[in-house]
Parts: sequence; structure tokens; C-alpha cells
Amino acid sequence: MHNDLLPSLGATINHTIKLRKHIVSPYDPRYRLWEKFLIVLVLYSAWICPFEFAFRRYLPSTIFLVDNIINSFFAIDIVLTFFVAFVDHKSYLLVDEPKRIAVRYLSTWFIFDACSTFPFQTISFFFNGHSKSLGFKLLSVLRLWRLHHVNSLFARLEKDIRFNYFWTRCTKLFSVTLFAVHCSGCFNYMIADRYPDPERTWIGAVIPNFMEHNLWVRYVTAIYWSITTLTTTGYGDLHAENTREMVFGICYMLFNLGLTSYLIGNMTNLVVHGTSHTKNFRDTIQAASEFASRNKLPKHMEEQMLSHICLRFKTEGLKQQETLDGLPKAIRSSIAEYLFFPIVQKVYLFQGFSFNLIFQLVTEMQAEYYPPKEDVILQNEAPAYLYIIVSGAVVKLLYYQNLQVHGRLTAGEIFGEIGVLCNMSQPFTIRTTELTQILRLNRTTLFNIIRQSRQDATIVMSNLFQVFN
Amino acid sequence: MHNDLLPSLGATINHTIKLRKHIVSPYDPRYRLWEKFLIVLVLYSAWICPFEFAFRRYLPSTIFLVDNIINSFFAIDIVLTFFVAFVDHKSYLLVDEPKRIAVRYLSTWFIFDACSTFPFQTISFFFNGHSKSLGFKLLSVLRLWRLHHVNSLFARLEKDIRFNYFWTRCTKLFSVTLFAVHCSGCFNYMIADRYPDPERTWIGAVIPNFMEHNLWVRYVTAIYWSITTLTTTGYGDLHAENTREMVFGICYMLFNLGLTSYLIGNMTNLVVHGTSHTKNFRDTIQAASEFASRNKLPKHMEEQMLSHICLRFKTEGLKQQETLDGLPKAIRSSIAEYLFFPIVQKVYLFQGFSFNLIFQLVTEMQAEYYPPKEDVILQNEAPAYLYIIVSGAVVKLLYYQNLQVHGRLTAGEIFGEIGVLCNMSQPFTIRTTELTQILRLNRTTLFNIIRQSRQDATIVMSNLFQVFN
Amino acid sequence: MHNDLLPSLGATINHTIKLRKHIVSPYDPRYRLWEKFLIVLVLYSAWICPFEFAFRRYLPSTIFLVDNIINSFFAIDIVLTFFVAFVDHKSYLLVDEPKRIAVRYLSTWFIFDACSTFPFQTISFFFNGHSKSLGFKLLSVLRLWRLHHVNSLFARLEKDIRFNYFWTRCTKLFSVTLFAVHCSGCFNYMIADRYPDPERTWIGAVIPNFMEHNLWVRYVTAIYWSITTLTTTGYGDLHAENTREMVFGICYMLFNLGLTSYLIGNMTNLVVHGTSHTKNFRDTIQAASEFASRNKLPKHMEEQMLSHICLRFKTEGLKQQETLDGLPKAIRSSIAEYLFFPIVQKVYLFQGFSFNLIFQLVTEMQAEYYPPKEDVILQNEAPAYLYIIVSGAVVKLLYYQNLQVHGRLTAGEIFGEIGVLCNMSQPFTIRTTELTQILRLNRTTLFNIIRQSRQDATIVMSNLFQVFN
Amino acid sequence: MHNDLLPSLGATINHTIKLRKHIVSPYDPRYRLWEKFLIVLVLYSAWICPFEFAFRRYLPSTIFLVDNIINSFFAIDIVLTFFVAFVDHKSYLLVDEPKRIAVRYLSTWFIFDACSTFPFQTISFFFNGHSKSLGFKLLSVLRLWRLHHVNSLFARLEKDIRFNYFWTRCTKLFSVTLFAVHCSGCFNYMIADRYPDPERTWIGAVIPNFMEHNLWVRYVTAIYWSITTLTTTGYGDLHAENTREMVFGICYMLFNLGLTSYLIGNMTNLVVHGTSHTKNFRDTIQAASEFASRNKLPKHMEEQMLSHICLRFKTEGLKQQETLDGLPKAIRSSIAEYLFFPIVQKVYLFQGFSFNLIFQLVTEMQAEYYPPKEDVILQNEAPAYLYIIVSGAVVKLLYYQNLQVHGRLTAGEIFGEIGVLCNMSQPFTIRTTELTQILRLNRTTLFNIIRQSRQDATIVMSNLFQVFN
Repeated sequence: MHNDLLPSLGATINHTIKLRKHIVSPYDPRYRLWEKFLIVLVLYSAWICPFEFAFRRYLPSTIFLVDNIINSFFAIDIVLTFFVAFVDHKSYLLVDEPKRIAVRYLSTWFIFDACSTFPFQTISFFFNGHSKSLGFKLLSVLRLWRLHHVNSLFARLEKDIRFNYFWTRCTKLFSVTLFAVHCSGCFNYMIADRYPDPERTWIGAVIPNFMEHNLWVRYVTAIYWSITTLTTTGYGDLHAENTREMVFGICYMLFNLGLTSYLIGNMTNLVVHGTSHTKNFRDTIQAASEFASRNKLPKHMEEQMLSHICLRFKTEGLKQQETLDGLPKAIRSSIAEYLFFPIVQKVYLFQGFSFNLIFQLVTEMQAEYYPPKEDVILQNEAPAYLYIIVSGAVVKLLYYQNLQVHGRLTAGEIFGEIGVLCNMSQPFTIRTTELTQILRLNRTTLFNIIRQSRQDATIVMSNLFQVFN
Repeated sequence: MHNDLLPSLGATINHTIKLRKHIVSPYDPRYRLWEKFLIVLVLYSAWICPFEFAFRRYLPSTIFLVDNIINSFFAIDIVLTFFVAFVDHKSYLLVDEPKRIAVRYLSTWFIFDACSTFPFQTISFFFNGHSKSLGFKLLSVLRLWRLHHVNSLFARLEKDIRFNYFWTRCTKLFSVTLFAVHCSGCFNYMIADRYPDPERTWIGAVIPNFMEHNLWVRYVTAIYWSITTLTTTGYGDLHAENTREMVFGICYMLFNLGLTSYLIGNMTNLVVHGTSHTKNFRDTIQAASEFASRNKLPKHMEEQMLSHICLRFKTEGLKQQETLDGLPKAIRSSIAEYLFFPIVQKVYLFQGFSFNLIFQLVTEMQAEYYPPKEDVILQNEAPAYLYIIVSGAVVKLLYYQNLQVHGRLTAGEIFGEIGVLCNMSQPFTIRTTELTQILRLNRTTLFNIIRQSRQDATIVMSNLFQVFN
Repeated sequence: MHNDLLPSLGATINHTIKLRKHIVSPYDPRYRLWEKFLIVLVLYSAWICPFEFAFRRYLPSTIFLVDNIINSFFAIDIVLTFFVAFVDHKSYLLVDEPKRIAVRYLSTWFIFDACSTFPFQTISFFFNGHSKSLGFKLLSVLRLWRLHHVNSLFARLEKDIRFNYFWTRCTKLFSVTLFAVHCSGCFNYMIADRYPDPERTWIGAVIPNFMEHNLWVRYVTAIYWSITTLTTTGYGDLHAENTREMVFGICYMLFNLGLTSYLIGNMTNLVVHGTSHTKNFRDTIQAASEFASRNKLPKHMEEQMLSHICLRFKTEGLKQQETLDGLPKAIRSSIAEYLFFPIVQKVYLFQGFSFNLIFQLVTEMQAEYYPPKEDVILQNEAPAYLYIIVSGAVVKLLYYQNLQVHGRLTAGEIFGEIGVLCNMSQPFTIRTTELTQILRLNRTTLFNIIRQSRQDATIVMSNLFQVFN
Repeated sequence: MHNDLLPSLGATINHTIKLRKHIVSPYDPRYRLWEKFLIVLVLYSAWICPFEFAFRRYLPSTIFLVDNIINSFFAIDIVLTFFVAFVDHKSYLLVDEPKRIAVRYLSTWFIFDACSTFPFQTISFFFNGHSKSLGFKLLSVLRLWRLHHVNSLFARLEKDIRFNYFWTRCTKLFSVTLFAVHCSGCFNYMIADRYPDPERTWIGAVIPNFMEHNLWVRYVTAIYWSITTLTTTGYGDLHAENTREMVFGICYMLFNLGLTSYLIGNMTNLVVHGTSHTKNFRDTIQAASEFASRNKLPKHMEEQMLSHICLRFKTEGLKQQETLDGLPKAIRSSIAEYLFFPIVQKVYLFQGFSFNLIFQLVTEMQAEYYPPKEDVILQNEAPAYLYIIVSGAVVKLLYYQNLQVHGRLTAGEIFGEIGVLCNMSQPFTIRTTELTQILRLNRTTLFNIIRQSRQDATIVMSNLFQVFN
């Protein structure tokens, strides 16, 4: 299971690889379709197998024909598997060598697949004429091995982000529950059906002549008993009447205890996972507003704090940064280049720079969102960053006796450059007017890059003075 | 849901925006009131709808009148929605363009709202005279669509820190449970009511002439069965008697399994969340006292450790720092300025500094609480920080043969400055006498700021020497 | 609750404070004893109150006398509370001003305490002669308010690390469960007892003449029904027979759903908390041995890795470091001085150093445990740290053609100093022979401290050369 | 328990230590075998003890013989324990001093072991001739003390990574459940068996002449009742009939509530632990693809991101780094030397370096995996690292008007060295062609190591130029 972690994604590189003749890729859409078709057959098998086990003598014989047809499909799949490439778990590459494929299959699941497909029933029918003996019934239970197809389907779905994890997981658990209910219902019926004294069985005590009722009534009653026991409702209208049934009941209830715990455990897991984002948000907001109220911060400061935190959660700012930090430098650089190069290139300060230099600047920049009416720079603050507006708009404010607006900057413009380059405290307060995306460049990083050649430093300063003259 | 994350907070900036004429803001208090009024109607609908479904033929006709009145309110809401601005999920701004509002509503929920409001019953009554057919009953179930109002209310409440998360969540789960119990009780009664042989139904087997009893008895019995099954108590005094009821029971029990797991999962989540603070506290205290006892630390050191940890948890010191670290520099600076500027300004060491410089010093300071009798500085320690007392008091202790008190410092005074500025080990031990809030300034940061102009360095040193002469 | 976080610990500083005359400290051992005595009375009240509610008419009259005696103790407690100091939640200091104590008590719990202590029963008895009316019964339920004493006891115990969290929590949950079972059993009996037709009650249907049985049988039967319902076992031998009982059953089962979820949630929380250490250990060991086997590391390297990780978990090395990091520098320094000064002082390299300087060295040192046979330094490694042995022993190994032992170092000796001071790669491999505790000093830190005066550097080098000559 | 954390691993160093004569090591394989043999006897005791308690009078007398034989084995174990060394919890060393072993055993478990082994039954039989009195029965329950052997076995298994944690834990819980079911079933039978009126017992009400049925029927019925109650199914076909049984039922159900919660709590814990890896993977992938789609990154960039993240999870890259970071420097260095020295030694750039220097370079290198078709270096990027290929292959790409392949590098070759050494932006884009493992060396670290001697710097530069000429 562990090794199967990523075929659904990430292995797309394998998809395009050309394989040998007559070897099918496991990512081939036609093979995928075939697998999906098999899943449908497996589901039918999973349902019919316990059902036949319990009710065979009341079933029409056409059902055996259907069984054999389905068996033949699985036989085809066994043959087909010898021609399907597989991903080697060491090199993570597709292996298309027929011999290695065969060795791997024969040494792992082949024997199980073969047993679960071998038509024991039909053969027994031809040989002795009576296929109802318990031995052959048990052999037909081998068909349940096919359920591993469903299991691996779910293992794949869980890792596929196109499907909601909560619902995938719930569907899986629901299927398992339904299957358990179906199996135990059928098995319990079989015990009653074979008991010498029909009156002293769980069903016979309530429906005395139950063997004469139609299949539907008996099946529903069996399932009803089964689910009443599984959910621990236990009305008691149907209950074990003899030792045989008690022993089965004991086993089933022990199993149920495990299953119910497992269901609850999974649900808890999903709930915890599902609400963690909201809880995180609440905790952060709560901490911020407690901080504000404890320190009696003025209203507008508290609002700036809360707006900023809200926006960060909305834009998943934290996760985004984490994602980028986990990537190697080259990927980060190419993303930064793709996203920000066109904007940074046009900034007046960097006119005349080589492609090289702008590229290096861009790779060191960090993008951030600011909500409306938030201060990005405060007047008199020590200069630490250079800012470039990607989208949105800001206003320059000068506090001199009273607060005056000194102009408005929009996408593609730069601010904070005077403080950084002239090494003086910021002359303006910069405040956003709408949702604004801003690139931030650390002062030290800027100097490190520019310092590489004297010429660039001159260009920057001349660009700066040109504007102010 | 995800996009709705923050309307309750943070979007307050939107609240003050002026909208077009005839367009209502979703944050308008009157609109909020209208929404709350609708919630009440929705709750009534949710209760009456399954009830009518089961007991219609025994209900007085006035109930239809009430239904129609309520329907008309929802019809008004549909019309109103065309005049309510909405928050665009990309720009996070309010959209008040009538056309865009209409397009958005028509393309999303309009059709559901319309269907759930359309008076199928009344119309059917006028047309055929008998509104009791199952088809029309099912159509009236469409009214349950209105529950999405309740759902979005809870989604909003969960994110609103004014409400306790535990109780909001519990109320939600309780409502869901009650609704499930109510629905299934009513539905199960309907099955019995419509069964050809009243004696062979779950209720008829216990109350033979149940149709002649009054509504209250029948409703309570139905709810009693329903909750007995939901909680998996399953006394068995009331239980399925025919296949139809069994099938419904199977479905209901399967649903219950999911619902119960979901309830437990949520409760676990809440308990884990609720106790995490205490557990954290216990673990930290335990680690500290184990450390103390393993190393046989003297009693007074252990007490200092524990006091400090306790205080940090009490004042949520850790969370506070985390909150501040998550904010952009400008907000942090303005908070620091607001909180600490007045105090730092009056410190003798910084007399003669420009506003600029003190502002920069303040933004780099960190506030901390110290419990009573804790050492802030030890004699002979290497100087690392400068400390300014915000509130509380400390004493200077000099250990020379024995421990002597050398003076007391209170709010607004500075200590540790001699060590930092003269680059010598601390001459005094400084110990708090009561709960003390202290600002801490890193030595390196201080020098970086002062170094900017030679003049400032001179001021600091002259201030320092003036005091000692 | 939140504000009560630490009285049990940390507030020990308050314990010694001298209070005004006639004012009792809440930490006074005698007051603590009185509180414990009250808890016993509260537990009796909690049990007797619902019991009287249900079975009053069968109880001997002496029970009322006991009630009144207990009441008088609570009356004393009310008076006493006016003389008990309290911890102010802002300043964390004890308040012993009688006026403030009175104001605080009167404005908070006084009214509840008074109502729960007022002897309504006795008064009603004197006035009308019959105290069995439902109204007065309900008033006597007010006594349950006293349970808040138990609640605050548990809140305190949970935060007290002398008591095991798991068992404290379990005891609390068990008590709550028992109380719920007791209350609902009694209440359900009362419903049956007052029902006009005793045959048509849950108990009368099974024990027709139940009123004539002795109290024990009736009480056990009631509790049996109650617990059968609470645990959702629901045998069905005792079940609601009339609408009144059904309504009570509905309420009780809804409450149970919540209680059961809460119990499971708490248990899950405790289990998760309890196993986290083992899980952590397993995960770390697993990661390390997978790493070793994937890279085919030789056996002795894998063993070194695993030994080291095991030891770190055994000595809680990680938690210890975390604990220290959370403390302010002064406490850390005084702990380091207390633990390591005597050892470092005796190291030959630092002979001739001032107290000052050794103190500064000590505060920068980190203590670590090494398991037997682990390499601390590898020959040819770049020098990064200086090591001082606190306990245990190491051997010097020199690999020159073959591995030769070059001496043995024990507690108080230093190694790695040649590499660090002469800036050359380490000449020896150092390997522990038993469990060894070692102090580590970073090279850069050492140089920073020594560099402060030229004299110290000379001392160090002369000490070094003296040994080698 | 806590102190037992690591005997299964890590303490292997103790295994080889030579002990005194006649003292057995607890790690001796023969002693381990003996312990395993005892576990089997314990399991038998645990089963037979409650069984005898309930059904003694129907059991053959041979069973007492078996009991005595088993008792004698435990007596041998008690004697043996005086000769088994133990691990001291302070020094973590084996203690083989007979006196300390005896003192430790006598002061801890000896008295319990002795009581649980003393043959009370046999003695009582000899004295009074009737061993069926309740008193002696209770004494024989002391044998259950032996279960602590099983408990410590599980505690050890849980920490042993050779066993799957999930299944170990499940087996433990399953055993506890089975034991609880068995005990309570037997005890409940005993209550019925001793009740004066056999008709008025839980079993007599259903099987009137139950004492005449064979043991199997009675045992199965008892277990059936027990498990029906434990799982809260509570059919009600078997239920308490008298007060005695009710009281036992109340206790058992209360215990069950705890046990069931504990089972669910454990299962939840296991599920959460088991799915955390998948959830982590999903969250990371989701964040990355949301980031890509929000910023409309081109397809090939998104694929590079996802491939990289997938590979990191596949190779557990994060955990590996964490594992290494937790180890002390010497172990890290020796691992690095073992793994990478042979490769780095052969790199052309370091030809002529001393062993010393290469060793230091190797210890600073970090290994990373890159998926196929990922860019490691981008053209024009600032040089930050030097890369050495351990396995796999990369191509050099030059973008000049169009993308041209400029050669291919395989295992043992170096790239990025021109940029780093000549301090210019990278001249080529380097892209992997298959799964590639690469060593990364930070530029600053490289310079720090080489700078140590002028000679080495010259060697590097001459090596570099030799290749380009």
C-alpha cells in the first residue's frame, strides 16, 4: 500500500513513455476502462457470493450461467496481467520486460487470482451432479478474493485530490459496513435453514413457516436482524434460539465491536481534519482580539490586525509560503520568473538592467496580499524592504501637522525605494486603498545583488535621481 | 463554505461602503433582522413539513393557511435577494450592480428557492380537490430546501468568535439529531398508517386501535420509537412487524450509524480542542519539575522556573508573540508605537533623541511579563539586552560577601544599560518584587540603530555619564 | 475556569504573604481541610437530593434532621467566605480588603449559595404541615447547586501535576455518569409512583405490586433501568408504558447521546495523549532504521544511531532542551551556574580565569547524554565544539594503519580543545565507554567570550601549551 | 512502564556484557523462551480461573492436577527471578549483584507473585475436605495477578518496531475484551447457579431446567449474555430477573461503558495515526495544485512541482532529514563519509585534496532526490550551490534563441561549479532525465573549508581551468 502512494499523480512522466509491442501501460485509458468494468463485476460477485451461499437451493439455474460468464472475464484479466507493465518500486520506472512481469505476477497474486476464478462449482456439478455440499460452497467463497480490486481502487481514490477525501472515505466505510451486514445476514439465515428443528431458530421462532415465504421476505428479515445487531440496536424481536446461533452471534458481535470502533475512529479522524481550518482561524482571530482588548488598542489598529489575519486565511497565505519553501530553488525561481518578471522589468528603477540581474532580483522577491486600508509602510520607520505593486493601489500619506494625501500609486509602481537606497527613515506612510498584491524585496538582498557590479549600482542611483529631478 | 470564511469579521471594511440606490447591503442591520426572522420561519417549516407528511388527514385546515402565509414570506425573500449586494469571491469587494446580482442568483440557487416556495398543495387542492396523494406530499418535501438558511447561519456562527465554538457546534449537532428523529418518527408512522393490516404494524401490535388515539399519543410513540432506534437503545417494545417497516428500519439504522459516528467524532474533536490548553500546561509544568528534580535544583530555582511558566500560560505570552509575528511590519510597528512610545520617550538615556530614532527603537522592543521574585539579570552575566520597566518594580541586588539591596527601580526606569553600553558584565542582579512588565531591546539592534549617526551615540553616552556623575 | 489556571502551582509566592487580621488565606491548610470536608457533604447532598425527591414518603423522618445539620454547615461556609481573601485576576495578588471580598461575593455566587442553603422544606413543614408538594420538592433541587464545589475541585485537580491526569479525568467522568444514572433513575421512579394506574407503568408492568416491595428492590430496579438505557443496552424488560414515561425517556436518551459522546470523546483524548510518547518513539526509531537499511549502513552505525535516539527519549533530552529554551536568560544562567560551575572551574584550560569569565562560559554550555560506545568526535573532523565530561568516561582513539587506544578521559576532563584552539582538524576519535554526560561549548561562542580581553586569550593558550610540554 | 521504554532496542549494548556466575541476563535467549512459555501458562490460567470459579462443581478432578502443575512452574519462576539481572533505571546498566536483585524483588512484586502461586485450594482441600466455599474461591482469583506478565509483554511489543503497532494494539484490546466477556459471563452464571429459586434467574427464565443441560450450552449462553451486554446490543431474551443480578448488571454495564469508550478511543488513535501520512500527502499536493491553478502556472511547471512533492513523500525525504538532524555531529559525519566519500573523492575538482579536506567537504553535503525532467539549475540563476551526481543523469541545456542540449552528465560528475567558483550567474540550465540523486554543497561552506589553506584554493582553480583548456 505504502509503495502505491503516488501513481495517481506525479507519475505522469511515466505516461508518455513508449513501451514494447504487445505490452500495455497501466496508465492506458483503455486499460483503466477495463479495470473500471471489472470493479462492477467484482461488486456483483461480492453481493451474489454470500447470497448464493445462503439461498442457493431457491435460486433459478440461470444464475450459474451468469456466474460462469463473469468468471470468464476474470480469466481474461489474469491472462491480460501478463502483458501489463508495472512500476518498479526502486527506480520508479515502468518495467515492460515480459519475463519480469511474469515473474512478478507468478510470485505474488497469481495463485490467489487463479483460485478465485477456477469454476469449482461447474466442475463439481459435472462430476457428482450435486453442487450443494458445504465443501464446494466454501470453495466458491474464494471468489471474495476479488474484493482486493475494490480495495486498491479505494487506496488510489484516497490519494487522488480530484475526489473529496471525506466522501471517498465515507463511501469506503459504508461499503464495508454493507458487505458485513449482507454476509452475516446470509450466513445467519443459512444456519437457520440447515437447523434440524426449524421452530427453534431465530427466524422460525417469529415466522414459523419461514421456508414457505418468498425470498424477499426472508432476505429482508435476515438483513434486518443483521443490521439490528451491527448497530447494537438489538430490539430482541429476532434473537438466537440455539447454541449454534449463539456462537455465530458471539463472533458477529465481537466483530461488530471492532467495526463500529473503526467507523467511529475514521469519522472522528475526518471531522478533526475537516474542522481544523476553522478552528485554526478561530484561535488566531481570538488571540488577536484578546491581545487588542487587553492592551486597549484603538479600534482602527484592531481592525487592521483582524483584516490582515482574515485575508491571510482567505488567500491561504501561510500554506502558499510553505508550499514554495518545500520546493527546490530552481522550481521556485522559474515560478517567480514566470509570475513577476514582466512586472519587475517595467519598474523605472531597474531600467537599463541586464536580463540576468532582473532575473536574480525576481527570484528573491516575496509576494503578499494586503487588505484595503492597511498600512504597508509607516512614516519614520527604518527602511527594510522595497515594495512593488502587482495589483491594486496604495496612497502616499504625509503626516505633517495633519495627515495629507501625497499621491496614489498603482500596479507596476515601486515604493519604499528612497528609504532603502538613501538609507534614511521612510518619508511617507503608504496605505492600501483596495485589495493589493505587493512584491517585497529585502534591502540586504537588493544590495548583495547590485553590489556585484559597480555599473548596476550607478544605473539604480541615476534612475532614482532622474525621477526626482 | 470555504469562501464564506470571513464575512463575520474582517470584512467590516465593506460595511461602510455606500451602495447604489435600492440595493441593500448584506451587512445592513435591517437585512440581518429579516434573515433572523426567516430562520424562525424555516425552523417552523422544518418541523411542520414531516409532521404534515405523516399526520395530514388528522390536522385542522387552518394549518394550510399558516403554510401559505409562510410561503409568501419566502416569496418576498426571493424578490428581495435581487436587491441585495454580494461579496465577490475574487476581489473581496461588494458588488451592487443589479445585473450581476440577478445573473448570479438565477444561475445558482434561484431555481431551488422557487421550487421550495411554489404552493403545489394549494394548486393541487384547487385542481383535483384531493391534496393527499403521495405525489403532492413529496413535492411539499421540497420545502426542506429552506434548511440551507439554517446551515449557512451555523457556518457563520462557527466562525464568529463572539459565540463559544463548543456550544455552537453542540447546538448544531443537537438540531440535526432532533430533525432526524422527528423525520424518521413521522415517516415510520406514515408507513404504519398506510399499511393495509393495522394490527401488523409496529404501533398496531402494541396499541391495537392506535388510529383512534389522539395525535399526541401517536406522535410521542413515533418519536419514542425513533429515538430508541437512533440511540441504539432498542428496547424492542416497538419493532418492525412487516417487510416494509423492516426496509425502512434498515435504512434508518444505517443512517444512524453514520450520524452517531459523526456526533461522537465531533464531540471528540471538541473535547480535544477544549482540553489542549490544560494538557499543554500540564506537560510543560511536568517537564520543568522533572528537570528540576532530576538535577536536584534548589527549591528557589524550581519555584522561579514554575512561576515563570505559569505566568507565561496565564498571560498567553506565547500566543501573543505568535500573533505579533504573523503580522506585517507596519502593523507591528504601529502597535509598538502606540503601546510603548510614551514610556520609552521619557527614559533618561534617550533624552535628546529625535522622534525618528525613538520610533525605530520602540519598534524593535519586545514586551515580557515577569512574575514576582524572579531574576531578570544575574550579576556577572554577559550583557545581551537593555530593559525598560513598563509596570511593576524591581530591586538591584549586589552580591559582595552577602546579598545587599542597592536600590529599587519602578515604571519608566531602565536597567542593564551600563553592561550593554560599556560592554562589561552586569554589575547587579536585578530581581522583580511584584508582577512586572518589561521591554527588552537587543544589544546588537540598539547599536545598529544608534550607529546610523555619530551624534546619537554621543547623546547616549553623555546621558549615561551624566547620571553617574 | 480559565482564570483559575494556576493556583495549584506557581502561586506559591502568594502563600507566604501576611494577610490582615480575621482574613483567611485560601491557601491556609485549615481552610483547605474545611473545603475537603464540604466536598464530602456535597457528595452526600448530591446523592440524597434526587433520592428524597423520588422516595420521600417512604423515608424515615430522621433524614430531615441530617439535612438540616448539613444545611447549617453550608450556612457557615457562606459566612466564612466573607473572610477569605481571593486572588485578583489582573494583578495576580491576594486581596484581603473585607469590602472588596464582600462586593465580589455578593455580586457573583452569593445569591445561588444562599438559595441552595435556605431550608425551604423545614419552613414549608412548619407552615402547611405537608412538605410533599411538587413545588417544595423542586425548591429542594436547588441544593444541587452545591455541586459547583465538586466541579471546581476537579478543575483544580486536573491542573495539579501531583495527580495523574488520566485517572483524575476518569474519576470525574465516572462521577458525572453515576450522578446522571442516579438522578434519572429516581426521577423515572417518581413518574411511575405518581401515575394514576400503577399497572401501566414501566415498573408496575413487571412487578405489579411494586409499591409494597422494600426500598432496596425499587431503587435497584430504577437504577438498573437507568443504566440499561444510558449504556444503550436496552434489554427491553423494563420500558416505558405510558406517554409520560415516553416523554421522559425521549429526553433522557437525547441527553445520553450527548453524555456517551462526551465520555468517548474524553477517553479518546486521554488515549491519544497517553500513547503519543510511545508513538513518537516508534516513528523516530522506524525512520532511523529505514534510513539505515535503505542506505545499507554498516551494523555498528545503525546501532549508534538507534542507541542515541533511544537515550534521547529515555532522558527526555528533547523536552529538557525545550523547557530550558522557554525560560528567560537569567533563570537559564543560574541553572547552568548551579549545575556546571564547579566542574568547569576545575578544567585545566580555564585555570587562572576570573569568576566572571567562567560564569559566562558556563551559561553558554549545553549538556548532552551520550550512550556507551558512541563516537563524540571523529578523527579529521572540522573542529566545531569543545567538550567537557561531567560524568562517565571516554577513550581517545587514533586511526593510523589500525585503531589504537591513546588514553582515557573521565569526569572533569576536556577534549576537542586542540582542534578548536589551534584551528586544525581533530587529531583523535573520541568514543564513550559508558553512559556519559558531556558539556558542549560552541567554538565561536568561546572565541567571542575570550576575545573580550587579550589577557584571557593568553591564559588559555599558555594553559594549553603547558599540558603539551 | 515509562522506564521500560527501550529494552527491546538500543539496549543491545547490554546484551554482550559478561555477568557473574549463576546470574542470568534478561536478554538471554533461553530466558526469553522461558518467559514465552510462561505467557502460554498465564493465558491458560486466565481462562481457567473464572471458569473454575463458576463451574467448579461440574468439572472433573483432573483439572486440579493441571492447576497444581502450572502453579509449580510459576513457583520455579519466582525462584528464578532471584538469579536474573536487571537494568538499573538510573545508570541504564545491568545489575548482577545477587543482593541487590533480591532486595529489589522482595521490595516490589515478590509478595504478589507468592500469593498468586500459593496453592490455597489444595491446602483447603486437605484441611476441610470441601474446597467449594466462596472464601477459597476468592483466594484462587489471586491467580489473575499473573496477567501482569501479559501486560508487560504487550508493553514490550508495542515498542518493538518489528511488530505492526496497529495489530499489536488491536490484539491487546481484543484480548482484554475477550477476558472481560469471559469473566463476567462466568460470574453471572455463578450468581444464577447459587440463587435459591432457579426459575427466577436470568438463565432459568429461558431454560427452566438449565442445571441439567451440558456445560457447553450453559457456557455459551453465559458468554452470549455477556457479549450481548458488552456490545450494548441487549436483545433482552436473557436479562436480570432478581436484585442480585441487577446489581451485577449495573456494575458490568458501568464497566462496559468505560471499556467501550477505551476501545473506541484506541481505535480512533490508531486510525488517526494510520492515515496521517496520506492526509499530509493530500494536503501538500492540494496546496501545490491550488497554488498552480490560482496563479495560472503553465502545465510543465505544475508538473515539476507535483513530481517533486510526490518524490519527496515517496522517498520520505523530509523524515530522513529530520532523522539526521536529530543525531550528533559525529554520527552524521560518519554516515556521510560512509555514503559519499568514494564518490566525492573521484570528482575532478577535488583531485589533489588531502583526505582531511575531502572528509570535511563530505560532512557538509546534503543528499536529495530529483524526479525525472526537473530543473536543478536555471540558466542565469545566482550561484548558490555546487552539485555532485550520485546516481541518475542530467542534461545541460543552453537557451540561446532556442533550447539546445549541450551535453549529458552522469554519476560522479559535478555541475554548477563554474558559477560558484567564478562568481557568475549559471551558464546552463541543468535538467534531470531520470530519477537522480544529487549531493548539494553550499557555496559559503565550500569557501569556508577551502579558505583554510591557500594551497587548496589553488588546486581547485587549477583543476577547474585544466578542464576548460
